[in-house]
Amino acid sequence: MRKLRLGMVGGGQGAFIGGVHRIAARLDGQWDLVAGALSSDPEKSIASAQELGIDSQRAYTDFKEMAKAEATRTDGIDAVAIVTPNHMHADPAVTFLESGIHVICDKPLASTDQDAVRIKQAAHASNASFILTHNYTGYPMVRQAREMFLSGCLGELRLLQVEYLQDWLSHPSSPDNKQAKWRTNPNLAGAGCIGDIGTHAFNLAHFITNQLPSKLSADLTSIVDARAVDDNANVLLRYPNGARGILWASQVAVGNENGLRLRIYGDKGGLEWHQEMPNQLMFTHFGQATQVLTRGSESMTAPIAHQATRLPAGHPEGYLEAFATLYKEAAELIRGNMHMSTLLPTLNDGLIGMEFIRAAIDSSKQDSVWVPLNCS
Amino acid sequence: MRKLRLGMVGGGQGAFIGGVHRIAARLDGQWDLVAGALSSDPEKSIASAQELGIDSQRAYTDFKEMAKAEATRTDGIDAVAIVTPNHMHADPAVTFLESGIHVICDKPLASTDQDAVRIKQAAHASNASFILTHNYTGYPMVRQAREMFLSGCLGELRLLQVEYLQDWLSHPSSPDNKQAKWRTNPNLAGAGCIGDIGTHAFNLAHFITNQLPSKLSADLTSIVDARAVDDNANVLLRYPNGARGILWASQVAVGNENGLRLRIYGDKGGLEWHQEMPNQLMFTHFGQATQVLTRGSESMTAPIAHQATRLPAGHPEGYLEAFATLYKEAAELIRGNMHMSTLLPTLNDGLIGMEFIRAAIDSSKQDSVWVPLNCS
Amino acid sequence: MRKLRLGMVGGGQGAFIGGVHRIAARLDGQWDLVAGALSSDPEKSIASAQELGIDSQRAYTDFKEMAKAEATRTDGIDAVAIVTPNHMHADPAVTFLESGIHVICDKPLASTDQDAVRIKQAAHASNASFILTHNYTGYPMVRQAREMFLSGCLGELRLLQVEYLQDWLSHPSSPDNKQAKWRTNPNLAGAGCIGDIGTHAFNLAHFITNQLPSKLSADLTSIVDARAVDDNANVLLRYPNGARGILWASQVAVGNENGLRLRIYGDKGGLEWHQEMPNQLMFTHFGQATQVLTRGSESMTAPIAHQATRLPAGHPEGYLEAFATLYKEAAELIRGNMHMSTLLPTLNDGLIGMEFIRAAIDSSKQDSVWVPLNCS
Amino acid sequence: MRKLRLGMVGGGQGAFIGGVHRIAARLDGQWDLVAGALSSDPEKSIASAQELGIDSQRAYTDFKEMAKAEATRTDGIDAVAIVTPNHMHADPAVTFLESGIHVICDKPLASTDQDAVRIKQAAHASNASFILTHNYTGYPMVRQAREMFLSGCLGELRLLQVEYLQDWLSHPSSPDNKQAKWRTNPNLAGAGCIGDIGTHAFNLAHFITNQLPSKLSADLTSIVDARAVDDNANVLLRYPNGARGILWASQVAVGNENGLRLRIYGDKGGLEWHQEMPNQLMFTHFGQATQVLTRGSESMTAPIAHQATRLPAGHPEGYLEAFATLYKEAAELIRGNMHMSTLLPTLNDGLIGMEFIRAAIDSSKQDSVWVPLNCS
Repeated sequence: MRKLRLGMVGGGQGAFIGGVHRIAARLDGQWDLVAGALSSDPEKSIASAQELGIDSQRAYTDFKEMAKAEATRTDGIDAVAIVTPNHMHADPAVTFLESGIHVICDKPLASTDQDAVRIKQAAHASNASFILTHNYTGYPMVRQAREMFLSGCLGELRLLQVEYLQDWLSHPSSPDNKQAKWRTNPNLAGAGCIGDIGTHAFNLAHFITNQLPSKLSADLTSIVDARAVDDNANVLLRYPNGARGILWASQVAVGNENGLRLRIYGDKGGLEWHQEMPNQLMFTHFGQATQVLTRGSESMTAPIAHQATRLPAGHPEGYLEAFATLYKEAAELIRGNMHMSTLLPTLNDGLIGMEFIRAAIDSSKQDSVWVPLNCS
Repeated sequence: MRKLRLGMVGGGQGAFIGGVHRIAARLDGQWDLVAGALSSDPEKSIASAQELGIDSQRAYTDFKEMAKAEATRTDGIDAVAIVTPNHMHADPAVTFLESGIHVICDKPLASTDQDAVRIKQAAHASNASFILTHNYTGYPMVRQAREMFLSGCLGELRLLQVEYLQDWLSHPSSPDNKQAKWRTNPNLAGAGCIGDIGTHAFNLAHFITNQLPSKLSADLTSIVDARAVDDNANVLLRYPNGARGILWASQVAVGNENGLRLRIYGDKGGLEWHQEMPNQLMFTHFGQATQVLTRGSESMTAPIAHQATRLPAGHPEGYLEAFATLYKEAAELIRGNMHMSTLLPTLNDGLIGMEFIRAAIDSSKQDSVWVPLNCS
Repeated sequence: MRKLRLGMVGGGQGAFIGGVHRIAARLDGQWDLVAGALSSDPEKSIASAQELGIDSQRAYTDFKEMAKAEATRTDGIDAVAIVTPNHMHADPAVTFLESGIHVICDKPLASTDQDAVRIKQAAHASNASFILTHNYTGYPMVRQAREMFLSGCLGELRLLQVEYLQDWLSHPSSPDNKQAKWRTNPNLAGAGCIGDIGTHAFNLAHFITNQLPSKLSADLTSIVDARAVDDNANVLLRYPNGARGILWASQVAVGNENGLRLRIYGDKGGLEWHQEMPNQLMFTHFGQATQVLTRGSESMTAPIAHQATRLPAGHPEGYLEAFATLYKEAAELIRGNMHMSTLLPTLNDGLIGMEFIRAAIDSSKQDSVWVPLNCS
Repeated sequence: MRKLRLGMVGGGQGAFIGGVHRIAARLDGQWDLVAGALSSDPEKSIASAQELGIDSQRAYTDFKEMAKAEATRTDGIDAVAIVTPNHMHADPAVTFLESGIHVICDKPLASTDQDAVRIKQAAHASNASFILTHNYTGYPMVRQAREMFLSGCLGELRLLQVEYLQDWLSHPSSPDNKQAKWRTNPNLAGAGCIGDIGTHAFNLAHFITNQLPSKLSADLTSIVDARAVDDNANVLLRYPNGARGILWASQVAVGNENGLRLRIYGDKGGLEWHQEMPNQLMFTHFGQATQVLTRGSESMTAPIAHQATRLPAGHPEGYLEAFATLYKEAAELIRGNMHMSTLLPTLNDGLIGMEFIRAAIDSSKQDSVWVPLNCS
C-alpha cells in the first residue's frame, strides 16, 4: 500500500501549526510530505522546504503554481494541508479544490463570510474532499463520549458547559510574537478568541451531542486595552429541546494553558472531559458512583474510540495522536474506506463555525440579545 | 468566660440545616443550646427539644412566646438561630430583633422582598445584631483568597466564574422529600436554585473580591417538567470596571454533589477554589508555576484565614468547621471583640442576595436582557 | 438523655492533641468537659482549666487526686481522656482504670512494653473500658473500605501498601517546638515515626482488612543528623496467606503534610484511600472502570459508614468529625449501646501497635531480618 | 539532510512494542524504516514487511542474512531496532554490532547474564553504538526533574520511592495472550515483573538522581498461582550516602494501568512525577507551597527538557513522544551531534539493569537479606 503524498501551504520557519500538521501526517505512516509553498517569502520557502527534505523542484514560492504543477505530475500530491493564517485559507483552498486536489485546512474556515462562501462553492463544484482540522474530535475519549451520548447513556440533553481557557494573551503582545500578531489582527484572523478557540469549543459540543443550539446570547470583550479583537467570550446557548448551555472562551485567564473542558448533563447521566487529561472521561449514571473511563481499557467501549487509538491503557496519548487520527482518517477517505472516515470534520463543520462566530459577534454588538443560529 | 446561650427556631426532627447549626454552635465550645421553638407542631417541638437536652420549660411551641419569655429571663438566650424554610425567616427575625435578641439566620434572607424589607427595618431599629449564615465564607482558604485578592496578588479584576452544581433535584422529587418539597415551592422558597444556591455563589464572589457586578443577564430554567421554580440558572455578569463574569447554579447536573467552585482572574494572577476540596487554593502568578496553597501551612499567609482554622496542615477541615467559624465569630461579636467579627455576613449581604435574585428573575423574564443591580 | 462527663489529663496550654480531643468530644453533643489535670505545672493547670470553663474545684494539679475525687463525687466523670506524651500514658491510665473510670487514651499505647503491660493488667482487672484513639478508623470511607473488604469485594488479600508521610521534622527541631521535643526524645516517645505515625498506618491496614502480617522486615533510619529516634521507616510485610505489604512512614518527606494513604489489592478488586481527601474512596473491580465512591452518597453503602457521618454528600467532613465519631461511639459504649461501638479501637489494638513497634525496631537492629509478629 | 535508514528485528504482526518503535522512529521525521526481519516465521515476516511498505528485497527472514546484506549495501541501514522478546536480544545485537550497524535495543538488556556479557563484549569491540530504549527517560518532565535534582534544588538525597504498578497479569493468562506468554516464561523473559517493569523503575530513579543504591533487600513473589516468574516485587534500597529507598513493581495491582510514579526527597525539597500524567511535575521547596511545573511552560526551565518537547504548554504530549525523543537523539548521535545525545540510555544502563535483577533475585532467595549492587 503506497503512502499518500502531501503538500503544504504555509507552515514555514517560525510557524506553529504547520509543524503540528507535519508530525500528525507522519505519525501513522500514511503520508509523505513531498511538496510545499511554505512561505510567501521565496527564500524562506526554499529554506524551509530544504529543512524538511522536500525536493527543491517541489519547493514552490506560490501556491497557484504549486497547484498547477502538482495537478499535472503523475506523482502529484494527493492532498494539500493549508496552514496559513485564517485570511489566507480561501485562496489556496479554492485553487486546490479547483485542481481536484483534496484539501486539509486548519480552522476556523476563514476570516470572512465571503471567503467561507467561496470555499463552499469551490468545494461543491469539486470532486475533491475538504477536511477541516478540528483536531480535538480525534481524541479517543471524545469519541467515547460521543458514542455514549448518542446511544442514550446520558438520556436527553439538558445542560452543556464547554470552556476553552488560555492565558497567553493576558498582556499586550510583543510585536515579535508572530502567533499573537496575526491572531489579534481582525483583518487576518476575522475574530479573536471566539474564532481561534471558541469555534473549537463549539465544535466539540456539536461533535459529541450531534445537536446545535438554536440561539445564543454573547458578551464578547477585549479585556486587554487596545486589543482590536475579543479576548474573552461569555456565551449562553439555547437548544431546540429546551436544553441550556454555556460556552466560555478566554485567552486572558491566568493559569490556564490550553484548558478545553466540557461537561454534559442529561436526565440519566453526566460526563466530563478535559483536554489536558485527555485519556480520562468521567461518567456518572444518576445515583451511582462516578466512573473514570480510560483510553485503551475495557471501559472504552466505543469502536470509534478504538479506531482512534494506538496504545494500551496507561500509556498516555496526547494532542499529536489526536491530530494524527484526522490525517489517518483523511488517508482512509482518499483510499475510499469511507466507513473509517465518517467522523472527519468537513466543510459543513467549518460553515457552522462561521455561523457561530457571526451570531456571537452580532449578539454581542446588540448587547447580548438572543440571536438565532442558522445552520442548515 | 461563660458560654453564650443559644435558642433555635425551626430545626426539629427531620430537618437538615438545624442540625448543622447545632454542631457548628457546639464545635468551638462557645455556645450552649438552651431553648427552642423547634417545630410548629407542638408534639414534635417538645420531642425534639427533649432529644437535644433542652430543658422542657424552654421547649416552646411558638417563637413569639419564646422571644417574650427569653427576653425576660436573667439567663435568657443571647442569640437565636433561625433555621426555618425561607418564607418563615421574617416573622421570627423581626420578633427577636424587637426583643433585643441577636439573630443568626439561615440564607437566603427571605422568600419575598416585602419580608426582606421587614427584616431590614427591624434590624435598623434594634440594637441586636443580625447575622446571615453564608457559611462558605468561613472556609480558611476562601479567606486566604480574599486577602490575596484585596492585597493585589491578582491585580485588577478581569474575569470571574463561579458555579454551584448539584444533582439532587435531577428528577421530580418524591412528596416525602421534605427538603425538596419546600425548596421547590415558590411560595415557601421564593425562588429555586437561584435563591437556594445561586445566592451562595454570588456571595462567595462578592466576599472574595469585595466587588459587585453592576448588571446581569440571566437565563433561568425549570429543566424538570412541571417544576414550579428554576433548577438551572445561567447568568452573565458585568462589573463596573469592565470585568466580566459567569455564574452558573444548577440542581440537575448529574454527578455533582455540592460543587461550589470559583475562579478569579486579574491582570497579574488567577486563583481557583473548590468547596469539595476546601483545604486547597490554587494560585498562579502570570508566567509562573501554579501553586497549591494549603490550609494550615506556611503558604496560608492571611491572619483572617488563621483565625478561621483549628488544625495543622494535612488534617482536613470541612463544612462543619467553616460553619462553626461563623458561630465562633458571632460569639466574638456579642462579647464585643469587634475585630474578630469583621467578616461575618450581615443583613446587607442578605439584601444584596435578594437584589441578585430579583435581578436574575427580572432579566430572565425579559429574555435575558441586561438588568442593573441596585446594591446600595 | 444526659450528657456524659469527661475529664482530661494533659492537654493544657500549648498542647496540640488535647484541643483536638476536646472538639471531638463536643462535636456531637454527647460530652461535657467538667474536670481536668491539664498540666503537671499547677499554675498552668489552673489557668488552662479556667480558659476551658472547668469549675475551679475540679481543676486538679495531680491526676491521682483527680481520680480519687472524681470517683467519689455523685457527678463524677464518666470517662477520662489521657492526652499526655506517650511516657505518661500508663500512670494515669492505671490509676483511672483502678478507680473504675473509663479511659480514652491517645496512641500509641505507651512508650515502653513494661508500661503497656501495666495498662493491660489494670484494664483486665477493671470493669471500666479502655479506648485508644486510633482516630483514622472514624472516617466514614475507611469504614466503607472495611465493609467492602470484609464482604469480599476485593477477593482474597494479595497486596497492601500503606504510607504515612509528613515533613515537619525535615530539619533539626527548634528547642521551642514542644511537639518535636517530646516526640523525638526516645525516653518520652518510646520510638520515632514508627510509633508516632507508623502505628496509625499499621492500625488502619488492620482495621480495614482484619488481617495482621505474620512477619515484618524493617529499615528504620534517623535521616536528620543527631536525631535520637527514627524519622523514616521502610517496612516490608508478609501475611499468613502469602499476601505481601509495604508500610512506609516518614517525617522528613518534603511536601507531605499528613499523607496517610492506603492501597489494598485482592484477586477481584483494588481500593485506595487518602486521608487528605477523606470523603472519597477509589474502588476498581478488575476489568472495570475505577469508581469514585463518596461519603454520604448512595455509593456509600455500608451501615457502619453511615453511622459515622453527619452530612450529605459533597459537604466535606474532615479530621475532627472522624475523631468525634470515636467520642460518640465511646458514649454509646458507656450508655450500653454495644452494637454502636463494636468498631472502637481498644486495648488490644494498643498492644498490637506496641508489638509492631517492637518487631520493627528488632528487625531494623538485625539488619532488616524478618521478625515474627506475635499478636495474640 | 537525509533521513536515516532503520531496520527492525522482531515486531511482526501481533507484536506490541515493535509498532511503538516504528511510530517513535517516524514521529520526528528523522528515520525511514527500510528493512526488517520482522518474524522468525518467513511468511509472517514477508507479510508484515509488505504491510509496512518495506521493499520485498529487504524483507528478510533471518537477521544474520539481513545484517550481512545491509552492511554491504550503499544504502544500507544506519541502525537496527531489536524488538524481540528478551531472550532474543543478544544474538541479533551481537550480529549487528559486529557488522558495524548501530543497535537500538528494547529493554531489559537480556534474559541471562551470559547474554548480557556477550552484548557487552560485542559493543566494546564495535564502533557502532548501542542504545537501550528506557523510554521513560524521554519525558520532558523527567528531564526537568533530573536537571533540578542535579542542580541541587532538592539538596542531598534522603528518600526515594518509585513504583510501577499494572494489573494486566492479575489472573492466569490465556494461552492466546502472546504478550503474557513470553513475559511470564522465565526462559524467554529471564525474570518477571522485576525485569519487565522493575528495571524501568530502577532506571528512572537512576536517571534522575544519577545515584545508585549500594545494597538492596527484595521480596519477590508470584502472587498468581502456578506463575513461574515474580509478579510482585517489594524492594528496599540503601544508598551510599545513607539515603533510603523503596521500589515496588507489580503486575497484579488491580486498578493500575501503567502506574510508574516516582517521589524523591532531599533536605531542601521534594518532587513527584506520574507517568500517567506526564506533563506535570510537582515540586516543593521545604516550607513553601507545592508548585505544579508543566511541560512547555516557563516553569519548565531545563534545556534538556526543551530539547525533548514539541508542543506548547497545555497540549499534552505522551508516551509516543517520549519514545520518539530517544529515536530523535539516536539520530543526532549517529549524525555526530554528540551534545544532543548525552542522555541516551546506553549499554551501561542495560548492565546496571541486569545487576539490579540479579541482586533482587539473589536477595529474595535468601529471605530478603541485603545484597550489594555491583555497578561499575
